[in-house]
Amino acid sequence: MALFVQKYGGSSVADAECMRRVARRIYDTQKAGNQVVVVVSAMGDTTDELISLAKQVNPEPNEREMDSLLSTGEMASSAVLTMALHALGAKAISMTGHQAGIYVDGTHLKAKIKTIRPKRIQRHLAQGNVVVVAGFQGMNASEDVATLGRGGSDTTAVALAAALKADRCQILKDVDGVFTANPRVEPSAVKLDEITYDEMLELAGAGAEVLQSRAVEFAKNYGVVLEVLSSFEVKPGTVVREEVDEMEHIIIRGIAADKNQAKATLLSVPDTPGVAARIFKTLAAALINVDMIVQNVSAEGRTDLSFTVAEDDVGKTRRVLEPLAEKVKAAGFRFDSDIAKISLVGVGMKSHSGVAYQMFDVLAANKVNIDMISTSEIKISVAIRMADADKAVRSLHQAFKLGRKAAPKSKAPAKKKKASSPKK
Amino acid sequence: MALFVQKYGGSSVADAECMRRVARRIYDTQKAGNQVVVVVSAMGDTTDELISLAKQVNPEPNEREMDSLLSTGEMASSAVLTMALHALGAKAISMTGHQAGIYVDGTHLKAKIKTIRPKRIQRHLAQGNVVVVAGFQGMNASEDVATLGRGGSDTTAVALAAALKADRCQILKDVDGVFTANPRVEPSAVKLDEITYDEMLELAGAGAEVLQSRAVEFAKNYGVVLEVLSSFEVKPGTVVREEVDEMEHIIIRGIAADKNQAKATLLSVPDTPGVAARIFKTLAAALINVDMIVQNVSAEGRTDLSFTVAEDDVGKTRRVLEPLAEKVKAAGFRFDSDIAKISLVGVGMKSHSGVAYQMFDVLAANKVNIDMISTSEIKISVAIRMADADKAVRSLHQAFKLGRKAAPKSKAPAKKKKASSPKK
Repeated sequence: MALFVQKYGGSSVADAECMRRVARRIYDTQKAGNQVVVVVSAMGDTTDELISLAKQVNPEPNEREMDSLLSTGEMASSAVLTMALHALGAKAISMTGHQAGIYVDGTHLKAKIKTIRPKRIQRHLAQGNVVVVAGFQGMNASEDVATLGRGGSDTTAVALAAALKADRCQILKDVDGVFTANPRVEPSAVKLDEITYDEMLELAGAGAEVLQSRAVEFAKNYGVVLEVLSSFEVKPGTVVREEVDEMEHIIIRGIAADKNQAKATLLSVPDTPGVAARIFKTLAAALINVDMIVQNVSAEGRTDLSFTVAEDDVGKTRRVLEPLAEKVKAAGFRFDSDIAKISLVGVGMKSHSGVAYQMFDVLAANKVNIDMISTSEIKISVAIRMADADKAVRSLHQAFKLGRKAAPKSKAPAKKKKASSPKK
Repeated sequence: MALFVQKYGGSSVADAECMRRVARRIYDTQKAGNQVVVVVSAMGDTTDELISLAKQVNPEPNEREMDSLLSTGEMASSAVLTMALHALGAKAISMTGHQAGIYVDGTHLKAKIKTIRPKRIQRHLAQGNVVVVAGFQGMNASEDVATLGRGGSDTTAVALAAALKADRCQILKDVDGVFTANPRVEPSAVKLDEITYDEMLELAGAGAEVLQSRAVEFAKNYGVVLEVLSSFEVKPGTVVREEVDEMEHIIIRGIAADKNQAKATLLSVPDTPGVAARIFKTLAAALINVDMIVQNVSAEGRTDLSFTVAEDDVGKTRRVLEPLAEKVKAAGFRFDSDIAKISLVGVGMKSHSGVAYQMFDVLAANKVNIDMISTSEIKISVAIRMADADKAVRSLHQAFKLGRKAAPKSKAPAKKKKASSPKK
């Protein structure tokens, strides 16, 4: 008997009909001879509606109260899904994060799971119940509810899978899995059967929205086998797991595009030791995540220093840079939001050279100008003009042959229609 | 420094604007030098919406899950109200029933409060906080949430007032207090300044909807001084408290009309010992509350037996009576929903005679036929035709001089305009 942890997001349980469909899926999994723990998000737009309500009474709501408020969405959702399971004849019980034994640290709105005491879950599983846990929440040392922040329900699912030593943690979504590129941009993009934790982390960090980095990190640390799959159709998704030897044969696993980046440039900074350190220390202290960094060639002892931040952080970055530019005697600063970051990710890069060269070559051939470059062991990212983003994804996808092969059984000659280079 | 427990119902906190108004009221109470514990219901129609959602996925939702679902309404409401208090600059903290130390028995959907451990409330009060408690809920021995049933938030407020030894428990509503009769039926009806627990209980049982009997009983048992007052205007309401000597000078405190009653009649029942006992034992076992009972004069060893039940219970009563009528050899049974129960309530009745006679006389003079009669020490109820209900209330209100007196300070001669007998 296998133990599955299944996580369903808000759009999968948006209304009564969705609830009934998800319940059927869960019950089928149980009837196939498995134990099932379900983690569920708040229904549809509930969380956004609660946030909007809170802001109506207080533009800066207290974080503890915000957590108390938001956590009710997942509690309600877990109870309703449990009722839907009962309607099918399934044995099932709902649990809040606290009842499920999920204990978190003291930070509100972005709490971290400290420990899970899954005794109550295990007792009810042993009695043949599907256990439906409210995602995104836990209890802190003050006996207050705290939420886990963005992607929190994914993290709940992975953490429960680790604590329960589940055979698999399934994240059910409105997509079929992880793709070689965004299928809305590149129609020949292929669903991956498997991907390593590190590749998934790089893709998530590079703008692929399919899984939150935090849940993947957690899965990696605890060796939880993750599967991203469709909540609408029963078919295999993408398995995220430890690297095995054969995986290195694939050099590029996928391409991600992140259009929510902005480039900040400090102009004419004195090119003396310690200045860059001072700048990035100040940004880090303000909790601004800096991604790519480029320092131009120095001229007359001065240099331009550019870096990218999330577009959401532009306001905060501006407030930090204003006094900072003066202190480090820069000539000023400016922002450029018209950029996109394109990343190639693949664990095979570790043992294959030439990927960077090939990438730049493809972009050049397509007249895409590269603004900034950064690399990791298994990723290459470039910042380019926003308008070139889709073209870059499509041409790289084709050049690295990531697309759908023509069906070998087809009698007609392979036409590579969908993978053809876009003319735009 | 006085300690107030204030309870606000769902319509008082229906939206953000209501929340802000209620927060202002609470903050004013605190700034006047009081400690304040607030008990709040779910916002507006939230509870009904959650029930409807539950029924969509399961026509007979499990009671534990229903409690988990419904309790989120009050949790959300308490957090939002706390945020609104913060926005005014008040120190405030929200608590779930569990956090407030409210422990209940094992019954779901109609749990009873077993004990309250108010340490956490007291600690936060001592720190200058308004404590906003989610009404209607507590934690049972299995660490599950259970709700208190209809009027549950009123009960939460009274129980907290008892546990905290509060100076007063204020129930803030969309009415100004308890009236001598329903002001929508009898415009000259007067708001009472005070009323005894027993009178309030009889009025509540007789159809006055201003307070739930359960909360009044609780207040009586623990000597909690209750006040029913307007949530919209700051002005004294009606104080519900122990009887004091002078209260007996007022013979009739108020008139209540209950239009949600139905009369059941078992026809031609054998008039032998034990038959009535058998009938009412069976009804009690089916949890059907019987109110008035009338047995007609026996003829030829047989009699008609009539009793009233809540209109909501007619279906259930019918199912019980069908086999029962056969067993006790009755000729059959019938229902009459076209009745209303009119009650006169007043603690002074204990020491004054003639009220019943006067009541029947007034009704006769107004051509209102009396169908059934029942009395308690401080109440007389009659069942009459539904169409006569408003006329009966108005004529009794006038005859017992319960109405507004002409203002004594007015220079014009008293006109008794509003107290004039309605012509209808």
